[in-house]
Amino acid sequence: MNSLFTGLSAFPLTPLHHDVVDEAAFVHLVQHLASAGVDSITALGSTGSYAYLTSEERARVARLAVEHAGDTPVFVGVGALRTAHVLTHVESAEAAGAAGVLLAPMSYQPLTDDDVFELFRTVTERTDLPVIVYDNPGTTHFTFTTELYTRIAQLAGVASIKIPACPADPGQAREHVAAIRSALPNHVTIGISGDASAAAGLNAGCDAWYSVIGGTLPHPAVAIARAAREGRADEARTTSERLAPLWGLFAELGGSLRVVAAIAEHLGLASAQCLPLPIQGLTSTQRARVIDVLDELGLG
Amino acid sequence: MNSLFTGLSAFPLTPLHHDVVDEAAFVHLVQHLASAGVDSITALGSTGSYAYLTSEERARVARLAVEHAGDTPVFVGVGALRTAHVLTHVESAEAAGAAGVLLAPMSYQPLTDDDVFELFRTVTERTDLPVIVYDNPGTTHFTFTTELYTRIAQLAGVASIKIPACPADPGQAREHVAAIRSALPNHVTIGISGDASAAAGLNAGCDAWYSVIGGTLPHPAVAIARAAREGRADEARTTSERLAPLWGLFAELGGSLRVVAAIAEHLGLASAQCLPLPIQGLTSTQRARVIDVLDELGLG
Repeated sequence: MNSLFTGLSAFPLTPLHHDVVDEAAFVHLVQHLASAGVDSITALGSTGSYAYLTSEERARVARLAVEHAGDTPVFVGVGALRTAHVLTHVESAEAAGAAGVLLAPMSYQPLTDDDVFELFRTVTERTDLPVIVYDNPGTTHFTFTTELYTRIAQLAGVASIKIPACPADPGQAREHVAAIRSALPNHVTIGISGDASAAAGLNAGCDAWYSVIGGTLPHPAVAIARAAREGRADEARTTSERLAPLWGLFAELGGSLRVVAAIAEHLGLASAQCLPLPIQGLTSTQRARVIDVLDELGLG
Repeated sequence: MNSLFTGLSAFPLTPLHHDVVDEAAFVHLVQHLASAGVDSITALGSTGSYAYLTSEERARVARLAVEHAGDTPVFVGVGALRTAHVLTHVESAEAAGAAGVLLAPMSYQPLTDDDVFELFRTVTERTDLPVIVYDNPGTTHFTFTTELYTRIAQLAGVASIKIPACPADPGQAREHVAAIRSALPNHVTIGISGDASAAAGLNAGCDAWYSVIGGTLPHPAVAIARAAREGRADEARTTSERLAPLWGLFAELGGSLRVVAAIAEHLGLASAQCLPLPIQGLTSTQRARVIDVLDELGLG
């Protein structure tokens, strides 16, 4: 198992200002995450709006992340609709000094399993960087099977799989993670995403947490990940449960992105309207609810 | 009603060769469509792989389409994940001399109705070109409501709505189209897509057919559209029914794109592997079935 792909990987926003990457805000976020003690930073994940940015913007953001993360390893999202563009982003990630790349099978036309396998084969053949397989059907509209995990995980270079939310019930979560584990080579780590189920996933044996909230509010995420890693399962669970109002907002307000953007804007980590249009972000009523929850949790 | 947005609009492929736009093949396709008597050509629709191409490739394809379409009006697809990029494509379409633009609300993060409305508002404010609203949830993963059609159709500049497949039953189809019609201003045309239901849609009162098959095999599409327009509903229906084996392939083989690409490759209108990777196109077994169907229909 590659220990690089364990623990808490924090996914920062790539804040925009007037539709241009706000480099100062991004650098500040990266420094904030590194000093909070996250295990890695994944720049240009879904939370980092990779899908909306040009190749030039992505190359620049990758470079800034590595330059300002200190000793914290940086992974870089390289997904794109076209394989040729993925390869361009892989080259930028290499040039930036990334420690790994995160690859989501973005789709416009529905993709077949063979299309996706060949995409991963092409990328792993072209780079020596370890690859995280990004399974997020809510945004990519591609659904992996366990069989496809197995095929792709056998490619040299595949280091980790980022899986969607797992069941909340501890027994079901263990069964779920064990089934995926048995389909993978030993060296490939499993990382949970879906912040609300991260404690359950980590307690059930996931090696990593690919975390949205960890990219904006790293301290509670570090606490959950550390408790789970050190075998304090109850503490991980109760720390996560205290954040239930936040997980509730993610579910109610159309996903985590708009909520963390509103949090970052409220905390002065990003300027107003930091998401790429056409995504307008939350309404003022929704923002007021987010601020109430932050205050209630002592995170504001 | 704007008569520009009526009749058969043919959607050509943008064939690639070794992952580069095959300009000669594209020009030949455009000339082929214009001489077959289609009413308009829509370059860079989903069939034209707009979502996979760079801004530079799209600007060049738009220009080639207008230059080689003769008197046939050309519409250009301008969709992109980010509003700023949509506006770049709109400028290219204007510079190319397009007669209109086709705008799909592409999504990675799920979009709200307000996000999509503002996207159309921004575009219609920035261009004098008429806009076709592109409703294709299978690729954009955004689902329009009739209420949203109404809001968007009230924007000055919106000329037509491209709706997904309609019911095959004539009564149900009429009801379906009438419900949409009653939600729109009179000047906005309704265009059916989903080739298998085009005859039903046209017979039920759609003004236009935004056609995949018409972009590669224009003659049978022209025949269906002409019969429907001239009130020969039975002829439109039976002509479409004769093509049922083709519609069957679209349904069975994961959509129309891979099938029309295989047809174009078989007919020498495109070279092998003309789709953008990671889309690999049909397997050899699937291609053999396509060729059998073409032969059976006398279209090979």
